[in-house]
Amino acid sequence: MAPKYKMTYFPVKGLGEPIRFLFAYGGVDYEDYRFEDEQWPQLQGKMPYGQVPILEVENKRIHQSVAISRYLAKQFGLAGKDDWEAMQIDAIIDTITDLRTRLANVHYDEDPVSKERNREPLMKETVPFFMSRFEDEVKSNNGYFVNGKLTWADLYFVAILDYLDVMAGKDLLENRPNLQALKAKILALPSIKEWVAKRPYSDA
Amino acid sequence: MAPKYKMTYFPVKGLGEPIRFLFAYGGVDYEDYRFEDEQWPQLQGKMPYGQVPILEVENKRIHQSVAISRYLAKQFGLAGKDDWEAMQIDAIIDTITDLRTRLANVHYDEDPVSKERNREPLMKETVPFFMSRFEDEVKSNNGYFVNGKLTWADLYFVAILDYLDVMAGKDLLENRPNLQALKAKILALPSIKEWVAKRPYSDA
Repeated sequence: MAPKYKMTYFPVKGLGEPIRFLFAYGGVDYEDYRFEDEQWPQLQGKMPYGQVPILEVENKRIHQSVAISRYLAKQFGLAGKDDWEAMQIDAIIDTITDLRTRLANVHYDEDPVSKERNREPLMKETVPFFMSRFEDEVKSNNGYFVNGKLTWADLYFVAILDYLDVMAGKDLLENRPNLQALKAKILALPSIKEWVAKRPYSDA
Repeated sequence: MAPKYKMTYFPVKGLGEPIRFLFAYGGVDYEDYRFEDEQWPQLQGKMPYGQVPILEVENKRIHQSVAISRYLAKQFGLAGKDDWEAMQIDAIIDTITDLRTRLANVHYDEDPVSKERNREPLMKETVPFFMSRFEDEVKSNNGYFVNGKLTWADLYFVAILDYLDVMAGKDLLENRPNLQALKAKILALPSIKEWVAKRPYSDA
């Protein structure tokens, strides 16, 4: 019997959803453990580096959502045909993380003054820059992020998009037809379609 | 003849130095192209996603320093013995990036008010938290970050440390004997020792 995985995260999509998409794609059973927000202060001290999501299997546990996603992508044949292609995928993933970090820095800023001041260049310059580059990338790669075929970069992007949209306060795919087509294609994969239909509701 | 690599970056250590450490470790010849700060406004528009470092080989080029470092680590046998170990290394790398991002958010903040306000919790809570966890990690792993043996997590950490120190405005290894020992061990590797002795001077 294959080892049973357990993934622990907040009851939202956020950084956990790429992992859930990958498990769905791979057809691998796992425990999708979602704790309540009230439990977090108590849980945090027990987490490696105070962070979630974590993945557990056979008494081993690991943190960092991107590292976990890459590991699962390797198991399911989505991590590139050679080292160079794996690097191309990794570069896209880290660029998505760059965009996410920029959005998070403003979204979670508790000072209304700096939040307001930083929001304008973020939404007028940074976000359009990244999104137009992503659009070009997918357009020039036959509808996928890397080399004209499905990789975990595509699953990762679509899985984390709702969270990015909530932080941006808008639909990031507006006027991006190639990214819209990619999203529709990923959500139409039978395994992903089934997961999205049954997953618990959350906005981000 | 092996293909000739070219690495393009600012004339500093920063995000480029882990790549340079890896090339040194692997004994692979490459062009260490350093442009001047004045050239950057003109260069930036030609860079993928407007970012450096980039790696070029045989008319292909790629951005994202961590993705490039992982690619080189694979070529030089430093990326783990299996997928799980590769993930353990990746988790450390991404956690170093988390710390770097926290430091950079304050270091590059152009508003003196928010910079000052955010610097205190950064230096009193965030930095000691990460550094004490890293210290414990290396202590419990026989002097290395992962599984008691040299991996690219160790090279990456030591290579980027000067940059982190400059952003923190202090020696991050102060009172961290296990991390100090790790640093000394990496800098004593003959290939790294030779590189550090001959590299152009820069503070960060």
